[in-house]
Amino acid sequence: MHKICVIEGDGIGKEVVPAAVEVLKATGVEFEFNHALAGDEVFEKTGVALPEETIAAAKAADAILFGAAGETAADVIVKLRKILDTYANIRPVKSYNGINCLKTGIDYIIVRENTEGLYKGIEAEIADGVTVATRVITKDASERIFKHAFEMAKDRKKQGTAGKVTCAHKANVLKITDGLFKKTFYEVSNDYKDIQTEDFYVDAMNMFIISRPETFDIVVTSNLFGDILSDGAVGMVGGLGMAPSGNVGDKYGLFEPIHGSAPDIAGKGLANPTATILTAVMMLRYLKENEAAEKVEKALEEVLSLGLTTPDLGGTLSTSEMGQEVAKRV
Amino acid sequence: MHKICVIEGDGIGKEVVPAAVEVLKATGVEFEFNHALAGDEVFEKTGVALPEETIAAAKAADAILFGAAGETAADVIVKLRKILDTYANIRPVKSYNGINCLKTGIDYIIVRENTEGLYKGIEAEIADGVTVATRVITKDASERIFKHAFEMAKDRKKQGTAGKVTCAHKANVLKITDGLFKKTFYEVSNDYKDIQTEDFYVDAMNMFIISRPETFDIVVTSNLFGDILSDGAVGMVGGLGMAPSGNVGDKYGLFEPIHGSAPDIAGKGLANPTATILTAVMMLRYLKENEAAEKVEKALEEVLSLGLTTPDLGGTLSTSEMGQEVAKRV
Ligand SMILES: CC(C)[C@H](C(=O)O)[C@@H](O)C(=O)O
Ligand SMILES: CC(C)[C@H](C(=O)O)[C@@H](O)C(=O)O
Repeated sequence: MHKICVIEGDGIGKEVVPAAVEVLKATGVEFEFNHALAGDEVFEKTGVALPEETIAAAKAADAILFGAAGETAADVIVKLRKILDTYANIRPVKSYNGINCLKTGIDYIIVRENTEGLYKGIEAEIADGVTVATRVITKDASERIFKHAFEMAKDRKKQGTAGKVTCAHKANVLKITDGLFKKTFYEVSNDYKDIQTEDFYVDAMNMFIISRPETFDIVVTSNLFGDILSDGAVGMVGGLGMAPSGNVGDKYGLFEPIHGSAPDIAGKGLANPTATILTAVMMLRYLKENEAAEKVEKALEEVLSLGLTTPDLGGTLSTSEMGQEVAKRV
Repeated sequence: MHKICVIEGDGIGKEVVPAAVEVLKATGVEFEFNHALAGDEVFEKTGVALPEETIAAAKAADAILFGAAGETAADVIVKLRKILDTYANIRPVKSYNGINCLKTGIDYIIVRENTEGLYKGIEAEIADGVTVATRVITKDASERIFKHAFEMAKDRKKQGTAGKVTCAHKANVLKITDGLFKKTFYEVSNDYKDIQTEDFYVDAMNMFIISRPETFDIVVTSNLFGDILSDGAVGMVGGLGMAPSGNVGDKYGLFEPIHGSAPDIAGKGLANPTATILTAVMMLRYLKENEAAEKVEKALEEVLSLGLTTPDLGGTLSTSEMGQEVAKRV
């Protein structure tokens, strides 16, 4: 029995998470779902966006399923990632049949460092109208994210991928911080002789996710670069409605769709649950429920290719109806 | 007579700049071209990547035409931008006929702040394996880049565009630095009541340059975000071979294709001169030679639609041959 901490969060989080939970229930795997609060709404009521009880519930669970963060995102999801030390933000980029992708044959994973860079929250106004933020890159954090990336490449290679890790950085301008990042990348690569390596400047990389996404296997980068690159990457394969992610560390796994709370469409049943269902698939794999994961993925692929979708994908179903179509095929 | 400082720089800079100079000569406008050195090669010979004489030559010219920077880019082009205080990096994104664009109907301009952000060069290793870089955002630099962006939107509106400025930032995480950036954007917008405004998080923006590039007019952002976004943006309209840019300030104008020195194809006549010819067009407009600018643009469009191009665009011509095809149609 797996204990899942469910944090719906704000906006469409309240619609897509229940849809994914229905699908999880249909797998036959035994779950205990514990709901916890976080986000704008609880902040308005209590003055705290991420209550202590939610942190405790997250820590007590085998995995956390998170919906969407709103205005308080930095104090909710960014903080949760840090507290749980989920240092690897795993963002698959995959072109599915039936989805309006700009290119096909895309199947790679962005591995985003999740604990430092410009997300440290070290900022100040040091004089009138003069502000600074500190970007932190350490050898330790770089080492562990690269190891994680290479291990993933090794695993994927067993399943038939090319076995390649691509590092994105800006070492030509950020000579010290990204100099360290790049150097550490090649040091770690020495322990993975049968995995290919390449590195690109982040600007070039942002073009390559458009011009040759089919050439990537694992892409590893620092925190903010990963944030920016991954939105572009998923823009090539149908957009945020399709994009799952998992934050994993040595102790915890926190799973969330990449999209935000989408206040403009919240509460209308319009939100596409695909990202969250794919997020649930990632969570199932994390929990070693591989069979269930495959069943859900197959069911979802069928639903997508039949066009049984929400309006953004061309269908006529509501969020929960699309979730039900997946659930009944699991 | 316009005095042009020509800095070919490294790699393919030595091929694409001469091609563009041929085209400039064909316009009939009177130029005096003064060649100056900068880059890896002069660094290897003298230990200095950007010689004092080059800086002096740049300052003495009416405009500077720059080719490509190599390994020493941070000490050449980034430094030149700073020394000349060319605070606005103007990067047009336009889909041309005959070019393999992922979408058509794209015509907007990225205005990148060019003097601060993470390009300040403030970095240090503060402990063993712990490095930091400082991101600087000031009210003054933000104000002037936004004014520049709004003035451009105003000018373009006269020519029939929507009249809109879009600001990209990451104020949800970088609350102080990008908080200031975003606040200043809306303050400046008050002086431009008939220009529409919108702002997006940079990650979302990186998706929108893919999913709805046709909705943008002027996009304004900070230094590194502009660097990253613009490569993606031009990836949608044929890639770096097509992408010109201009660095402009109150006193100087420094014009360069966005691409780098491309050591892999340098010296082979394979480099696409389009970006540099379009860069020359931007320089002509800066010099108020609008008629000549239009002639070159038309000639180039004809050459592109006839397929008289370098191999990367599907043609069979060399860099200089393609330049000649444009020159003879001017
Ligand atoms: C909501 C925001 C704080 C978050 C981030 O910047 O990490 C989001 O953009 C993401 O990619 O998960
Ligand atoms: C070469 C490099 C220093 C430069 C930059 O980062 O500005 C380039 O990427 C650009 O976009 O002009």
